[in-house]
Amino acid sequence: MKINNYVDISTIDKEAKKDYVDRHSPFIYCDEKMEKGKKSMVKVQVGKEYSHPDDFDHYIDKVELYDGDRLLAQAHVPAGTLGNQSEQLEVYFSVVPTKKKLKLSALAYCTKHGVWQSGETVVEVV
Amino acid sequence: MKINNYVDISTIDKEAKKDYVDRHSPFIYCDEKMEKGKKSMVKVQVGKEYSHPDDFDHYIDKVELYDGDRLLAQAHVPAGTLGNQSEQLEVYFSVVPTKKKLKLSALAYCTKHGVWQSGETVVEVV
Amino acid sequence: MKINNYVDISTIDKEAKKDYVDRHSPFIYCDEKMEKGKKSMVKVQVGKEYSHPDDFDHYIDKVELYDGDRLLAQAHVPAGTLGNQSEQLEVYFSVVPTKKKLKLSALAYCTKHGVWQSGETVVEVV
Amino acid sequence: MKINNYVDISTIDKEAKKDYVDRHSPFIYCDEKMEKGKKSMVKVQVGKEYSHPDDFDHYIDKVELYDGDRLLAQAHVPAGTLGNQSEQLEVYFSVVPTKKKLKLSALAYCTKHGVWQSGETVVEVV
Repeated sequence: MKINNYVDISTIDKEAKKDYVDRHSPFIYCDEKMEKGKKSMVKVQVGKEYSHPDDFDHYIDKVELYDGDRLLAQAHVPAGTLGNQSEQLEVYFSVVPTKKKLKLSALAYCTKHGVWQSGETVVEVV
Repeated sequence: MKINNYVDISTIDKEAKKDYVDRHSPFIYCDEKMEKGKKSMVKVQVGKEYSHPDDFDHYIDKVELYDGDRLLAQAHVPAGTLGNQSEQLEVYFSVVPTKKKLKLSALAYCTKHGVWQSGETVVEVV
Repeated sequence: MKINNYVDISTIDKEAKKDYVDRHSPFIYCDEKMEKGKKSMVKVQVGKEYSHPDDFDHYIDKVELYDGDRLLAQAHVPAGTLGNQSEQLEVYFSVVPTKKKLKLSALAYCTKHGVWQSGETVVEVV
Repeated sequence: MKINNYVDISTIDKEAKKDYVDRHSPFIYCDEKMEKGKKSMVKVQVGKEYSHPDDFDHYIDKVELYDGDRLLAQAHVPAGTLGNQSEQLEVYFSVVPTKKKLKLSALAYCTKHGVWQSGETVVEVV
């Protein structure tokens, strides 16, 4: 299996390709700085400008959140939870940082188009 | 295996028992009403007044969110994500209701004390 | 959510009900005795005399294996892995017993008919 | 996060490195040919000549089996299931092939050393 890596869609010409890349890519939303030993929330959202179908035979089945190579959390979402309509899946996970930096990245899995990896989000821990 | 069902801790006398029940129980937080076909967030939090350890040999390994008997979402969280300290695990899942009512309940699994079920939260969908 | 408990189908009259109960129930297959500290395989099979569909909107999404209240392993199987035909899902997990007895039970989750629990299989560990 | 790809350990000089690569790598065992529409079992085993610890803070938390980019099955195994001793995790998944070929690969996740990908096993479907 291969990992599809996120590409900034402003560098892509064709509209269909922009849509294809964006709707499959997980995006990470969180504070730029976190406090050491304090719980923070990290959001993983699949699709930023475009939305992915939630059809029974074509949906986002899971997302994973990593700090470097360490799995922080994984969510499995069966088809239908997003109403069988085009939506951006969102999951927030609680995280307590204990090191100086978090290097967050996420994976999303589409049942038709495989595994997609986000860019890396570095969080300073103070 | 058995499912431990949530008990209102105000009905429990002993402090240790209150703590034990509360810190293992998943609680659901969401809007009382949701809009049909519109994405809403539902939070599952483990522990309301007390916190559970996040030790390697004793932690909350997963939570599940159901609408009636239908699984909406599941999260797996390995030990250490909450900093190996006592914390309330929190996960938010996006949900799009398509029926008149949601009957939400949640499960939490502790690696030492098994599976715990929340009470039911009924959401009116308008 | 409720847990549907396995019922011996020889006690059920109607054929449709026999089929319904059997095809959703997880069954455990393993040695009656296991050796302490030695790896053994435990099979969880969904359905014994009947088979469950593997349709995109109706399939067995996951199975879990417990020893008492302790989760030994969980498998998630998306629709289509069983060829979109009626089949009995089978998963084998490796287990190393360290106590005198295993009290094995399993859960299966059907995306239309919820969670089903097996009977208990007691394994003597020598 | 990065994916560590399997390397044939006969090409590695240092014993410690052979052990490190082998004990983290998932290996696929199945028939070379499968029958279309007929259920077959595919084994994912982590480690071939070496074994991985099953310590609470260091264990193989999950394995995934793919056909090309399609997830066939995933197993989560908490620490302790392998008796907290060095073992090769084994999971068998039932699979019904419907195409001319399966291109099987597997991922394994170690809580300390990240994600590891197997080589590809091509199965002819007749």
